[in-house]
Amino acid sequence: MIIGLAKMLHNDFQIDIKNNDLFDEAFTHASYVNEHPKEKLKYYERIEFLGDAVMQLCVSEYLFERYPMLPEGKLSRLRAAMVCEESFSRFAKECHFDEYIRLGKGEEKANARQRPSLLCDIFEAFIGALYLDQGRKVVIQFIHKVVFPKLDMGWFDHLLDHKTELQEYLQQDGDCAIQYDVLSTEGPDNDRVYQMAVYAEGKLIGKGSGHSKKAAEQMAAKQALKNIRQ
Amino acid sequence: MIIGLAKMLHNDFQIDIKNNDLFDEAFTHASYVNEHPKEKLKYYERIEFLGDAVMQLCVSEYLFERYPMLPEGKLSRLRAAMVCEESFSRFAKECHFDEYIRLGKGEEKANARQRPSLLCDIFEAFIGALYLDQGRKVVIQFIHKVVFPKLDMGWFDHLLDHKTELQEYLQQDGDCAIQYDVLSTEGPDNDRVYQMAVYAEGKLIGKGSGHSKKAAEQMAAKQALKNIRQ
Repeated sequence: MIIGLAKMLHNDFQIDIKNNDLFDEAFTHASYVNEHPKEKLKYYERIEFLGDAVMQLCVSEYLFERYPMLPEGKLSRLRAAMVCEESFSRFAKECHFDEYIRLGKGEEKANARQRPSLLCDIFEAFIGALYLDQGRKVVIQFIHKVVFPKLDMGWFDHLLDHKTELQEYLQQDGDCAIQYDVLSTEGPDNDRVYQMAVYAEGKLIGKGSGHSKKAAEQMAAKQALKNIRQ
Repeated sequence: MIIGLAKMLHNDFQIDIKNNDLFDEAFTHASYVNEHPKEKLKYYERIEFLGDAVMQLCVSEYLFERYPMLPEGKLSRLRAAMVCEESFSRFAKECHFDEYIRLGKGEEKANARQRPSLLCDIFEAFIGALYLDQGRKVVIQFIHKVVFPKLDMGWFDHLLDHKTELQEYLQQDGDCAIQYDVLSTEGPDNDRVYQMAVYAEGKLIGKGSGHSKKAAEQMAAKQALKNIRQ
């Protein structure tokens, strides 16, 4: 078993591994296997193949439910931004997965341990191992901790139009009057901050601020959606 | 509810629909929704987004388990051949899904009902609806009827090397002597048919025939794998 991996998963994610071999496989690079031919090790590629598909479905299902009014094109763009090398390599780093990878000496020297493509592979392989070892529910719990909060943290805001989303959400069963108003304007001309409020049928449902009225409206709509969903 | 759809799913696949709306959505094209603005219909694209990911995972999981020795590259090529427009449109036709699509008049005239890209979309959308309505298990049962048998029917044989697969399977826990022998040669020079047998440690485990010794060996290996897995 890779030293420290099981302990880290227990401490950081309350995951108690059943089959160590699966996680050894998920964190082992082909270069390490080639350097240890007698140990009959497996490397992560097959299990990564599975983990990739697990992530695709879990993220798709979550987005489908969370954004009931978002058209397919936007769902696909959002999924592509979440399920990609850049995002997965960041998640892997955040979970300290880089510290547990078994690499051959040449790859280690070439600093492969910090290569985004490798970190992305390891993240997918970990998901594959988790799926096989613990099942779907535990995978979803893990993703709810590591992946989905990034939506609320604004990682993918450039792909989301909160105002349109709020409007579609509120008007799905018929008309609903939505209004945005300036609450306050502060700061000097070159660093103005606007605070906006959004009202549905006259009732305050969200507030937000930004360096333009448009940006503040987006933040108010985002806040309103968050309040509604809670 | 689309006429005949629920009955067909009951008769042909023993599926009893709970939420008709999901299946109406899955079989409705945007052109039909545009022609019936008062009915507030939904078209299939969002549910297809989900169904696509469901298929990816179900096929990945099946291939991962069925071919424990196949490297990732071959698994990926096999998945790509199974999860693609050509395959899905054939599955859709086989299930008579084309008969239930709701299309606008213009698309109908343009013969969209038989267009592979549309048939593929509808197949994915159906899988999405089935997943939401009946859950994962019923989807897997359906795929076991409609999709996976094609592997045994040889649809994807050009991507599979049965001899290598058999060898890897039999030798995974150590050495195992594998031998191929000609059982018979029949027919004239220009239409020769060879029958080959494959033995593991001297025991007959499969037979196969073909127009070359190589082809007959592949068929014998395929038959042996089938016998072993049963």
